[in-house]
Amino acid sequence: MNNKLSAIKRIENRVKQIPGAISLAQGIPNFTSHKLIQKAVIEAIEENKVDRYSPIMGLPEFRNIIATTLAKRKMYYNPDSEIIVTAGGIEALAATLLTILEPDDEVIILPPCYGYYDKMVRMAKGKPVAVPLSETVWQLDIEKLKTHITAKTKAIILCSPNNPTGSILETEEIKAIGELALKHNFFVIADDIYENFYYGKKIPMSIATLSHYKEKVIRIVSLSKDFALSGWRIGFVHGTEDVIQQILVTHDNLINCAPVVSQYAAIAALENETIILNEYKEIYTKRRKLMGDYLEKMTKYLSFTWPEGAYYFFPKIKGVKDTEAFCFDLLEKAKVGTVPGDDFGSGGQGHIRICFGKSEKEIEEGMKRMHAYFEEK
Amino acid sequence: MNNKLSAIKRIENRVKQIPGAISLAQGIPNFTSHKLIQKAVIEAIEENKVDRYSPIMGLPEFRNIIATTLAKRKMYYNPDSEIIVTAGGIEALAATLLTILEPDDEVIILPPCYGYYDKMVRMAKGKPVAVPLSETVWQLDIEKLKTHITAKTKAIILCSPNNPTGSILETEEIKAIGELALKHNFFVIADDIYENFYYGKKIPMSIATLSHYKEKVIRIVSLSKDFALSGWRIGFVHGTEDVIQQILVTHDNLINCAPVVSQYAAIAALENETIILNEYKEIYTKRRKLMGDYLEKMTKYLSFTWPEGAYYFFPKIKGVKDTEAFCFDLLEKAKVGTVPGDDFGSGGQGHIRICFGKSEKEIEEGMKRMHAYFEEK
Repeated sequence: MNNKLSAIKRIENRVKQIPGAISLAQGIPNFTSHKLIQKAVIEAIEENKVDRYSPIMGLPEFRNIIATTLAKRKMYYNPDSEIIVTAGGIEALAATLLTILEPDDEVIILPPCYGYYDKMVRMAKGKPVAVPLSETVWQLDIEKLKTHITAKTKAIILCSPNNPTGSILETEEIKAIGELALKHNFFVIADDIYENFYYGKKIPMSIATLSHYKEKVIRIVSLSKDFALSGWRIGFVHGTEDVIQQILVTHDNLINCAPVVSQYAAIAALENETIILNEYKEIYTKRRKLMGDYLEKMTKYLSFTWPEGAYYFFPKIKGVKDTEAFCFDLLEKAKVGTVPGDDFGSGGQGHIRICFGKSEKEIEEGMKRMHAYFEEK
Repeated sequence: MNNKLSAIKRIENRVKQIPGAISLAQGIPNFTSHKLIQKAVIEAIEENKVDRYSPIMGLPEFRNIIATTLAKRKMYYNPDSEIIVTAGGIEALAATLLTILEPDDEVIILPPCYGYYDKMVRMAKGKPVAVPLSETVWQLDIEKLKTHITAKTKAIILCSPNNPTGSILETEEIKAIGELALKHNFFVIADDIYENFYYGKKIPMSIATLSHYKEKVIRIVSLSKDFALSGWRIGFVHGTEDVIQQILVTHDNLINCAPVVSQYAAIAALENETIILNEYKEIYTKRRKLMGDYLEKMTKYLSFTWPEGAYYFFPKIKGVKDTEAFCFDLLEKAKVGTVPGDDFGSGGQGHIRICFGKSEKEIEEGMKRMHAYFEEK
């Protein structure tokens, strides 16, 4: 049993105790759910559609619109057998890992990456095997990756655009991973939670668009970030019928079905996808520039690259050894919450993650406070 | 990996394919959520309170009202450290088992019991150890139980009132289990999902009311049945701070937090508990009588006892060997869905579970069809 909460949780808890503190830590958008979504949900509640379990795979109408949305992006999955609606991306990944792993099976992760990967693999009694990205450019070293593949390798987890680095995998990197998965018979778990967050010419490509690798691909999607629905706990997982039907049994044992009210929210989200995502994209593009411009003024104290995707900056703070102590000090003295890079595993030390999901006002104030903190130090 | 769905799921799927079929299988109330609950939820949505993650333990206001509700029933738990809000009873139990079990640890279950217990223990890489209740009176044999306790015993799961038998554990039985738990250092997981469903003088008592055993008790509560909120996926787990803080880490890895919109539904449910439960109790009492009276007319074909609690009858069908085949035949020929007792483990064979959660009209029509099926056979 393991009872330590991640630094991000402890930072968020502390932020709530400090009057006037601003959190740029947790990766949640400051948006509220779109009015179109709220309207659809309220109708569903009033029509008594949300009170009973849905099928464990999820509402057929939701799975159908998921399949249509995927097909627009060249991902072809059967809504009757290859898609499960889940209680967010986390439940999707938990159900996947608990299904495919036997004790001591290995899962390759590519830190700096989402801190849950390591914890969730351990929860499923598997063994996380870290292959750190090269620092500063955050590139994957395929040759190094190969040396970490063993007979026990059951999966690799990809996240592109990546949390926390904001980097996007190259198509060639993805294909190389796909070939290794076919050759060594492991799954590629594509956590595509930030698929709609990119800011330049480089557009994220999912391995699930390459049918050649389909039998080894399990793809995780959440509506938390794209549609500002984190509190609703809604997402889905898709893959081949064979593995999805096995994940379904675990999903049933974890939660039975995703919250039905949230499934209706998600249907409305996908029905209005273009309107909602375009609105948000414009705003995030502005916020990214705002935060990045402030960071440019602090290069005496930190170094950073502009993120290609997701909604985080991941600067390296000069001269900092104990990043967690730095983040707590920054929070206590300047009242700004950030996440120590250690939370994202090997290679994250010395970096802090700052989220531009928050409002412009909060970003401005938070960055000003951070700047003043450095100046006064 | 295990990919067989339970019979109940296959029956429910088949029911949906047969026009006019009535399901008395799945244990869901036919009620829709109470208007008081709907009103509170719609307000919370419109006030944008539900869009972001809550604390992983759940909204403080929900935990506070849970603690108050528990205290009225002589269960004293600290809302800040001893209660976690979960996505229904299933997620609460899954998080508990995944936390406390190491591979091959044993969990004692008392079949006939909820079919998920066996599956969930296996999902958590544990080993279910069945100690069947004596048939017809469904009593626990404490001496037999003792012979199944080993050094690997990590927990016992109790459900009283019990699904599917409707039986309620005696206070003396509960105390005997508590003593064994203290002596042999295992947890008593009290799945008290049917705590508010009882029909006679025997009132269900939870082991969590006996402070003497508190350190070994983990209690699971769902709002699915009591408040007709199954689709909302909302419940909670409580225990000592030590174990709850460990379960919290797993809960975080499974779902992060329970759906926030459902937490608001649940707050409204508990705020209006007396009104809502009294309304429902009167209705269930009537439905139980209705279904039981029909069964009394079929004693040529089956034997049964009146349930003390929960909302199921669990009659034994005379001369039936393959209960699953019987249930599917009954469904195909008479268009009534019931659950084969095999789904509830050892001792369930030959029995079928019939739920009186459905409307009086459905119960009447379903029971008439069942009667005609026996007569024509």
